[in-house]
Amino acid sequence: MRERLADEVLEANRALAAHGLAPLTWGNASGIDRDQGLVVIKPSGVSYEDMTVEDIVTVDLDGNVVDGERRPSTDTPTHLALYRAFEDIGGVVHTHSTWGVAWAQAQREIPLLGTTHADLCAFPIPVTRALTEDEIESDYEGATGTTLVELISQRGPLELPCALVRGHAPFCWAKTPAAAVDVAVTLEQVARMALLTTLLAPNAPPLQSELRDKHYERKHGPQAYYGQP
Amino acid sequence: MRERLADEVLEANRALAAHGLAPLTWGNASGIDRDQGLVVIKPSGVSYEDMTVEDIVTVDLDGNVVDGERRPSTDTPTHLALYRAFEDIGGVVHTHSTWGVAWAQAQREIPLLGTTHADLCAFPIPVTRALTEDEIESDYEGATGTTLVELISQRGPLELPCALVRGHAPFCWAKTPAAAVDVAVTLEQVARMALLTTLLAPNAPPLQSELRDKHYERKHGPQAYYGQP
Amino acid sequence: MRERLADEVLEANRALAAHGLAPLTWGNASGIDRDQGLVVIKPSGVSYEDMTVEDIVTVDLDGNVVDGERRPSTDTPTHLALYRAFEDIGGVVHTHSTWGVAWAQAQREIPLLGTTHADLCAFPIPVTRALTEDEIESDYEGATGTTLVELISQRGPLELPCALVRGHAPFCWAKTPAAAVDVAVTLEQVARMALLTTLLAPNAPPLQSELRDKHYERKHGPQAYYGQP
Amino acid sequence: MRERLADEVLEANRALAAHGLAPLTWGNASGIDRDQGLVVIKPSGVSYEDMTVEDIVTVDLDGNVVDGERRPSTDTPTHLALYRAFEDIGGVVHTHSTWGVAWAQAQREIPLLGTTHADLCAFPIPVTRALTEDEIESDYEGATGTTLVELISQRGPLELPCALVRGHAPFCWAKTPAAAVDVAVTLEQVARMALLTTLLAPNAPPLQSELRDKHYERKHGPQAYYGQP
Repeated sequence: MRERLADEVLEANRALAAHGLAPLTWGNASGIDRDQGLVVIKPSGVSYEDMTVEDIVTVDLDGNVVDGERRPSTDTPTHLALYRAFEDIGGVVHTHSTWGVAWAQAQREIPLLGTTHADLCAFPIPVTRALTEDEIESDYEGATGTTLVELISQRGPLELPCALVRGHAPFCWAKTPAAAVDVAVTLEQVARMALLTTLLAPNAPPLQSELRDKHYERKHGPQAYYGQP
Repeated sequence: MRERLADEVLEANRALAAHGLAPLTWGNASGIDRDQGLVVIKPSGVSYEDMTVEDIVTVDLDGNVVDGERRPSTDTPTHLALYRAFEDIGGVVHTHSTWGVAWAQAQREIPLLGTTHADLCAFPIPVTRALTEDEIESDYEGATGTTLVELISQRGPLELPCALVRGHAPFCWAKTPAAAVDVAVTLEQVARMALLTTLLAPNAPPLQSELRDKHYERKHGPQAYYGQP
Repeated sequence: MRERLADEVLEANRALAAHGLAPLTWGNASGIDRDQGLVVIKPSGVSYEDMTVEDIVTVDLDGNVVDGERRPSTDTPTHLALYRAFEDIGGVVHTHSTWGVAWAQAQREIPLLGTTHADLCAFPIPVTRALTEDEIESDYEGATGTTLVELISQRGPLELPCALVRGHAPFCWAKTPAAAVDVAVTLEQVARMALLTTLLAPNAPPLQSELRDKHYERKHGPQAYYGQP
Repeated sequence: MRERLADEVLEANRALAAHGLAPLTWGNASGIDRDQGLVVIKPSGVSYEDMTVEDIVTVDLDGNVVDGERRPSTDTPTHLALYRAFEDIGGVVHTHSTWGVAWAQAQREIPLLGTTHADLCAFPIPVTRALTEDEIESDYEGATGTTLVELISQRGPLELPCALVRGHAPFCWAKTPAAAVDVAVTLEQVARMALLTTLLAPNAPPLQSELRDKHYERKHGPQAYYGQP
């Protein structure tokens, strides 16, 4: 079971690189085994090509390493904060994807301008609040998780599958590590399309609300009819 | 005959992915067998790599599945509206290509700024009207087809080979599925070139009309001399 | 001799596609055998993957086909005008490369903003004048060549190795087909860098003239010391 | 020892091409053997595919060729100026990467807008001063090195691992040639993200200083905890 999860997490980390979402070693994916309360995550600073399943690290929900020779990703406390707060999350992904970072650095939420966005989520993609000096000094990565949890609590973890950490980059989550990678791919496309739209129409109106709801519901609602039954 | 069409449609769907026009599963191609009145189309939400000819679905012009185990693309009613309205159309393609989507989300038609555009079509690429609340609720995908048919009727289906669905993305059509893919590739280039031109010259004038007609006619007119005889 | 030239021209056409400068079939390369006064060029509308050396067409300087089964590129008269006017030109390339086209459509010359540009050429990249209605109707592709010849005559064909045809796209030339492809690759980079620079600094000053001359001369001047002796 | 260095330098030059940072032959990487005081560098104007370890040139710190058949990169005097001034530098890289060049041509320093930048360096990426007419004429490439040394002296060569040469392009340095390539990859991402951020928010504030220091220190400070021990 945990072996299969480690394979999935390895695969998800490699997918980040293959999709161009994580230059050099700047991204990480994790997954959780809810029965055992253990999280499986990328090692810190290891390249995606060199990484094997032996490099993957297992930690408990307090961040103690319980398996693996490597030091886990420095962003591990952010992942753990998400897993602790929301039972429905099974995978978390962090990227430095270019267009998502541009919005995060501009400190602007990504407006909901089209159906590609509505197929992912019915809300603008929000930006976390600034951290206090204290939060940065005492528990930086954990506090980053706290600001994400604050945003998610307003919507629900499956209703809002990603957000931008202010001045930093995207975090994404879903039921599995592979699904969180799909969210990251989609978010980057949405970020890129929204930026280009903004260049063409600086005051582009948000997507018609009925169209937004139709697209979100046909994919994610109780009567969803997108995909195979 | 229908087997060959299914192969062509499979190939066209894979070409969308290969050209980078349809991230994840966000695009679909179809073709029609006019003798039998049957349309062959991509299954909903299936990835381009995994897809085989067995996954391709056959529907009649009213949308009833007559062959295949899969649920057809959710956009099937839009494709069918185009096939029903215009006898000359043999293939339809829908993409979420980045630069085309930017214009669709900006709700701006793509102006005819150069000969690359005129080689495709002698008109700006128009944007469909907004749907009414009623249309969205009762028959969303069919009504999307209706708004495309409204635009095409003003020009002719071969004269206007593509359009942008407002707030959504491009639809393209042609005599065959492969030719509709070529339209989609061209449209994305035209959309990108036009956006970059707009950044350099926000009020760039449309292409000289004689030059526009010359390029369109040398490729598509009765005395066309582009390509092999 | 002519066989070797046909191989070089085939190779140059494939290189345009490999460098992403000519989507679908939208670009062409040619070369000239000065001893025989014969030009070897791409066939019209044939895809770069399918093309073999048998598809390459030989024409004389008046455009008469003297060898090959195919119809030559529709842009052949433009290539011929360049070869007839300038003895030093051995290869000509036409592309629809994205960023070069953006400047051509914006009808703006590419300003000389940096050393990458000065390594290619000591002048801004100019845009041809508009064609008259008469020129378009009577001899469109030949007249396009005339407007290029007008620009080149002010500078010299090796001093100005490329230009933008107004509303259309780049033409490039050099001593060999392969060298003309290198000009096309460089022009596209220069066009892209200049557009991005313009976004950051709409009124960016031209490169310091001493620096411009230094870079041009160290690569192309009589005391050039770039490259191998 | 020098053979291993030549392999590393060959590898670093190929990596520049593989990362798309050096179109055609427009980039170069070098490394130094401090014990012997010899610098190993790319030959001038040789393509990355054709280059073998035999093409790599060895020069002393005054620029005299001591090994190799080829003429060294024209930018050799710039590399040497950096090696002479700073003992801690073991590798130097010069690229013409698109987005970095755009900032260099705009003659604007790259502002520190996000954590991706702070992971590299705690300062904006500066632009060298303009050269005097005299400097350009008498010792152009050496004087370019002088202007880089002036900038680095204010910060330290490991604290400021790269800069933009005004009107030209990036130079990067680090303890090894491979590490200098990583700086070049990072700089290009940072340049691209900063330009896109500027389009979204022309007056985007610099990253919160506590966050900047936290990211820089967790990767490069005495208590760094990023990567493996």
